[in-house]
Amino acid sequence: MSSPLIVVNFKTYLQGTGEGAVEIARACRDVGASSGLTIGVAPQLCDIYRVASQVDVPVYSQHVDGVGAGSFTGHAFARCVRDAGACGTLINHSERRLRLADIDASIQASKDVGLSTIVCTNNVATTAAAAALGPDYVAVEPPELIGSGIPVSKADPEVVTDSVAVVERIDPGVKVLCGAGISKGEDLKAAMELGSVGVLLASGIVKSKDPTAALRDLVSLIR
Amino acid sequence: MSSPLIVVNFKTYLQGTGEGAVEIARACRDVGASSGLTIGVAPQLCDIYRVASQVDVPVYSQHVDGVGAGSFTGHAFARCVRDAGACGTLINHSERRLRLADIDASIQASKDVGLSTIVCTNNVATTAAAAALGPDYVAVEPPELIGSGIPVSKADPEVVTDSVAVVERIDPGVKVLCGAGISKGEDLKAAMELGSVGVLLASGIVKSKDPTAALRDLVSLIR
Amino acid sequence: MSSPLIVVNFKTYLQGTGEGAVEIARACRDVGASSGLTIGVAPQLCDIYRVASQVDVPVYSQHVDGVGAGSFTGHAFARCVRDAGACGTLINHSERRLRLADIDASIQASKDVGLSTIVCTNNVATTAAAAALGPDYVAVEPPELIGSGIPVSKADPEVVTDSVAVVERIDPGVKVLCGAGISKGEDLKAAMELGSVGVLLASGIVKSKDPTAALRDLVSLIR
Amino acid sequence: MSSPLIVVNFKTYLQGTGEGAVEIARACRDVGASSGLTIGVAPQLCDIYRVASQVDVPVYSQHVDGVGAGSFTGHAFARCVRDAGACGTLINHSERRLRLADIDASIQASKDVGLSTIVCTNNVATTAAAAALGPDYVAVEPPELIGSGIPVSKADPEVVTDSVAVVERIDPGVKVLCGAGISKGEDLKAAMELGSVGVLLASGIVKSKDPTAALRDLVSLIR
Repeated sequence: MSSPLIVVNFKTYLQGTGEGAVEIARACRDVGASSGLTIGVAPQLCDIYRVASQVDVPVYSQHVDGVGAGSFTGHAFARCVRDAGACGTLINHSERRLRLADIDASIQASKDVGLSTIVCTNNVATTAAAAALGPDYVAVEPPELIGSGIPVSKADPEVVTDSVAVVERIDPGVKVLCGAGISKGEDLKAAMELGSVGVLLASGIVKSKDPTAALRDLVSLIR
Repeated sequence: MSSPLIVVNFKTYLQGTGEGAVEIARACRDVGASSGLTIGVAPQLCDIYRVASQVDVPVYSQHVDGVGAGSFTGHAFARCVRDAGACGTLINHSERRLRLADIDASIQASKDVGLSTIVCTNNVATTAAAAALGPDYVAVEPPELIGSGIPVSKADPEVVTDSVAVVERIDPGVKVLCGAGISKGEDLKAAMELGSVGVLLASGIVKSKDPTAALRDLVSLIR
Repeated sequence: MSSPLIVVNFKTYLQGTGEGAVEIARACRDVGASSGLTIGVAPQLCDIYRVASQVDVPVYSQHVDGVGAGSFTGHAFARCVRDAGACGTLINHSERRLRLADIDASIQASKDVGLSTIVCTNNVATTAAAAALGPDYVAVEPPELIGSGIPVSKADPEVVTDSVAVVERIDPGVKVLCGAGISKGEDLKAAMELGSVGVLLASGIVKSKDPTAALRDLVSLIR
Repeated sequence: MSSPLIVVNFKTYLQGTGEGAVEIARACRDVGASSGLTIGVAPQLCDIYRVASQVDVPVYSQHVDGVGAGSFTGHAFARCVRDAGACGTLINHSERRLRLADIDASIQASKDVGLSTIVCTNNVATTAAAAALGPDYVAVEPPELIGSGIPVSKADPEVVTDSVAVVERIDPGVKVLCGAGISKGEDLKAAMELGSVGVLLASGIVKSKDPTAALRDLVSLIR
């Protein structure tokens, strides 16, 4: 089992906004360093520069639009996201669904500036479709389990194993993450055993009273 | 004629991205200081913190979503926008149109954290509608003139005067800006004479070879 | 108290689809005729022609796009809606929210072909905004009460009276409907007493085991 | 070369609205019958019932939403579309782009009621993605050529051959159509020679002064 990719999505949680984003990013960096694992953070667009300029941690954007330089107002421009310090981005999160053509454009715009791409999907069929677009990662997250506290690895393990199988067939160069309800060490371990290479998670860490302790528990069963 | 509000929208222009955003913001600050006028900037979401922490200039967001703290990914959360250093925000720009209920929610979310609100509209009817929602400003910009180089004050002066009249009737506390094709001193002067209290502009400054000179020209006829 | 306007929205309820739409439309026609009231129906777009060509009842579309003749695929074109037999349309229903500029365009497109316009809104502020666009009706429906079985006239009477007051101030030519949770005679009576000129309703009639009886109850307290 | 599928999209062209839709549908039926080819029509949602109940021609919807029976207003419900007389539907046309998860839901909803599915795409990558969702057809149409009068088979033949190749690899059960700029017999012939099994077209037929003659020319080189 190789080293997993863990990405903590800060959403618009108050605890992960502004200075709070910097603090949780520091916890991710510290637990990542002590465990030897890669723990990335996905703060809000407005917090990318603040976090990336203060904390040595992989920073992902929560969203990138498939637009170039030009007359676009209120969009997440890949070049700006990267210049602010991000190394990658979520695309098509269940709370920010995109049109198919825009997912393709977002992946291309992100690749053009060197951002790693994680396309979120809701089931095996859309995982297959997303893999056909050639992102770095597809992250399958059944929407009904997001924020539920019930880990996808327990509630619906087949969505993970089937996603891994279909992506292997469509494009073996694409890696599979999973998410929804993930918060504990056993969840991450189960996710890896099902064939995913890592997890997306959010409230289980960001809204925890002690994010550092929550992160330590998360990585406790991986070595 | 009281002092106008000038807001320069950086869109996703390369010249106004990252360090470029900081440089143009400095030009706005300098020309604002020397002319005694308020020249605000509207950089991309990812650049708000970078600009606001380095340049003493009023910073506006290009967009705010009508969402609160919680499970929202890839959204512009008013609290985060403000904590990054913005004093206000554009809402419903023609390149980022919102649903009516979301404009209302965005105004409320912005007001709740003290952000000044500028709702963009495309004609007199939508200006009246936007004014009924009680923002600080409505900025009327006929979409066909945006980026055209033909100033709204010349091509369609009635859209400005009629907007001023209808807003006065709906809510005299709301102020009217105008935009589209504005770049020169005569455009700003004409806009003020038509009853608006200021202008939105973009490419005429941001894509200029010499933004400082362009800004000086812009304010040259106001005293 | 003048004669109210009652519009029954069939949504995508199975009971109100295809031949079911024709049957419920007949019930509306019959109860309308016997009570002397106007009871309109809002079937799905695909059912407008079928209903209008078979039943003598006012037919409203559930939606009209603000597009003209041309290269638009999958849109509800006002001319086609009217030619299919509709006399009016809902616009911006809470289940089909539109951007502000598109609500304005939809109202204009509808008026151009003689369709009566009913713009749905979610609170007093958006009611005021919608009234400023000059539709025939604004229908205020707090989203949290839609389908709840709790009538807006009981749960939130102020949203109706305040809507009536604000619309009177913005444009006295616009009439106010209300909706959400309306199904019984006492609900309609209360809605009229609060100053609205009619109601939108849906599941209380369409999903009733006996729509004719439900309609008779609805109109039983109006004379 | 087997018999091609030809689908004529009426968009919101005035010539293809209401009684005009019925007339062009008759032309499609007649030329289809005399040539032995399948020529389907895609009228507006409001015209499906009118056309299907009067003309013996395969009728496709321009759009289906991925919703079931229930509280959905202004949506194209697959069951209603089928009950109105459609045998299939376009999904994700370039003028009605959908989110990835909604394309998947629309395909499923359509299949559940027996509608044939044609998912439109804009390039080879999105064609691959759409094929992974398992529709009956994918129709690749470079947006910049739609309505241009320049046939995709001449301007960009590789987008067709590459689409055919990638779909064969992803799911050989999915068939490939192409479209954009198609109007003449040589265009259809070229499209078939490039490996597609048919074409989508629109203005070349619907806006023609003589649709029957235009259709005859279209099928003149196929036998």
